[in-house]
Amino acid sequence: MKRKVTLKQIAKELDVSISTVSKSLRNSLEIGEETRLKVQAFAKFYNYKPNNIALSLKNRKTKTIGIIIPEIVHYFFSTVINGIEQVANENGYSVIICLSDDSFDKEVRNMEMLANGSIDGFIMSLSKETQLKGDFHHITEVINQGMPVVMFDRVTSEILCDKVIIDDKSAAYEAVQSLIDKGRKKIALVTTVDYVSVGKLRTDGYTKALLDNGLPFNENLIIKIEDVDTCEVIIGQLLEDKAIDAVFAVNELFAVTSIKAANKMGLNVPNDLAVIAFTDGIISKYSTPTITTVSQSGKKMGNKAAKMLIERLELEHEDDEEEEENYKTEVIETHLVERESTN
Amino acid sequence: MKRKVTLKQIAKELDVSISTVSKSLRNSLEIGEETRLKVQAFAKFYNYKPNNIALSLKNRKTKTIGIIIPEIVHYFFSTVINGIEQVANENGYSVIICLSDDSFDKEVRNMEMLANGSIDGFIMSLSKETQLKGDFHHITEVINQGMPVVMFDRVTSEILCDKVIIDDKSAAYEAVQSLIDKGRKKIALVTTVDYVSVGKLRTDGYTKALLDNGLPFNENLIIKIEDVDTCEVIIGQLLEDKAIDAVFAVNELFAVTSIKAANKMGLNVPNDLAVIAFTDGIISKYSTPTITTVSQSGKKMGNKAAKMLIERLELEHEDDEEEEENYKTEVIETHLVERESTN
Repeated sequence: MKRKVTLKQIAKELDVSISTVSKSLRNSLEIGEETRLKVQAFAKFYNYKPNNIALSLKNRKTKTIGIIIPEIVHYFFSTVINGIEQVANENGYSVIICLSDDSFDKEVRNMEMLANGSIDGFIMSLSKETQLKGDFHHITEVINQGMPVVMFDRVTSEILCDKVIIDDKSAAYEAVQSLIDKGRKKIALVTTVDYVSVGKLRTDGYTKALLDNGLPFNENLIIKIEDVDTCEVIIGQLLEDKAIDAVFAVNELFAVTSIKAANKMGLNVPNDLAVIAFTDGIISKYSTPTITTVSQSGKKMGNKAAKMLIERLELEHEDDEEEEENYKTEVIETHLVERESTN
Repeated sequence: MKRKVTLKQIAKELDVSISTVSKSLRNSLEIGEETRLKVQAFAKFYNYKPNNIALSLKNRKTKTIGIIIPEIVHYFFSTVINGIEQVANENGYSVIICLSDDSFDKEVRNMEMLANGSIDGFIMSLSKETQLKGDFHHITEVINQGMPVVMFDRVTSEILCDKVIIDDKSAAYEAVQSLIDKGRKKIALVTTVDYVSVGKLRTDGYTKALLDNGLPFNENLIIKIEDVDTCEVIIGQLLEDKAIDAVFAVNELFAVTSIKAANKMGLNVPNDLAVIAFTDGIISKYSTPTITTVSQSGKKMGNKAAKMLIERLELEHEDDEEEEENYKTEVIETHLVERESTN
């Protein structure tokens, strides 16, 4: 798609200031008739269309950032919010948070509500339902209105905007590799049934690590948990059958439940079962034994997302032009926090 | 302070409808001259002052509730928010959340921002700093503008508004009583140094339970923790000195840290040390041993707060009158969730 001509390009072409172009297009009498007509003719020729909504939004800065997250009883999202708050406050921005409850409708409703003059831009993580539906019209609309959006963690390639992610595939790969390095050969992946983008990437990383190390890939060791209570039963059965010597869990709850299953059978963690969890939250830090985790650095992610959004907001402000190009995707480094559940 | 005359009272006195009074005061030509002049004279005589801000706010309903909470990485507040969201959504309201980070300035800034047309009313829990300062002018201002406020958990008697609390004193009393019933005699209270209202009430409940049972009150067993790392050292020392056989902790972190201290000394929880924590969060459920807790029913608290706010919002709407009287304080029942850390 060819980009439409901008104020900046018209200004450059005619060797006048952007402000002169802008005023001429509004037919301001501050600008001499000759220049005015020349600018107008040029703009018409190149089919220039001012983005009126965007312009009006730009003139009415709220200095407020809107955050849309899927759920709140979730340590990772809480830490991301703290990271956003920190950078926002340092830069004189306030923060408003809305929850989608992993519902598409609620995500749409909340975005429409906030976009209606309450905020300057969004930082968001997609709801499960939105990812399943693949319907992102509400986000496109907001961006078309000239409101910048930064996505984090649960993102989509369907939307062009700034993004902050971790490399879920590499992170999972590293975690599984560390289990293999410790001599584990029968590693279960305990994951969720829903199809959030990150889930797939983690499964890919798990699989690749096994194959790269010449270990057999056994589909029965990929356990998709719908209800956390079934987790204990399934892990218990696998331990009974001596089918596993390690668990890589996509969240802390599955990890701590796997440990419980092992304890109930009189097995020792980490000796009989090594456990690594994705996301370094409070459960892992305070459980017995403490759990080795992949730290997602939620705070860093929040810091970065806020920086990207604010930079774009201030850029727009100075420039009076849309800069919807040069979108960046920042990858935040993860690292393994080694604790008692591996050895 | 004598209450000023209301539209309703004028209407009753002159035997006309509230709408007639309202229109007469706005000098609407819909109302005959005689009635108009009579209403205006009456209103002037009784010094009636319309609350213009309130009226304009009432006419511009956003169907959005604003929540102000002190922190987000906190299971209790997360569950309250879930409770609010549930009732709000059932009633067609959206919810916006802002964090005060326990800072007075941020609480003030966020309230001013939201009160400026984004929401219809507030549900809030005071920041530590606001409670310390005792400065509630920002809340008074919002209420005077005709915007209802419901406070929960961290409330103040200085502000007249609807409130939802738990009986922190009774809850603490019951927890300590249950330890005494199990034969514990040397019970430590592990609490915080800051002076949040609920902290004082819990200490009162602890003290009363000891005295009512004829147990000695020992000030050295009230441990005020500034940094969670010191908790382990202090509890370790008390265990070393055989000074305690039970811990009542005002939060889960202090409870789990006390258990760690006992484990490190080769002591058994609950045999050598019984532990109860305030707030039933995820740490208590997943730690080893699992921890007996006082459940604060955050979700119920949120449900109730949302119901109270929405009732007041809809009442105002129908009535066109301020109803700043009849404020209620609802007390949510707590209960002890018995787990492995007591026996």
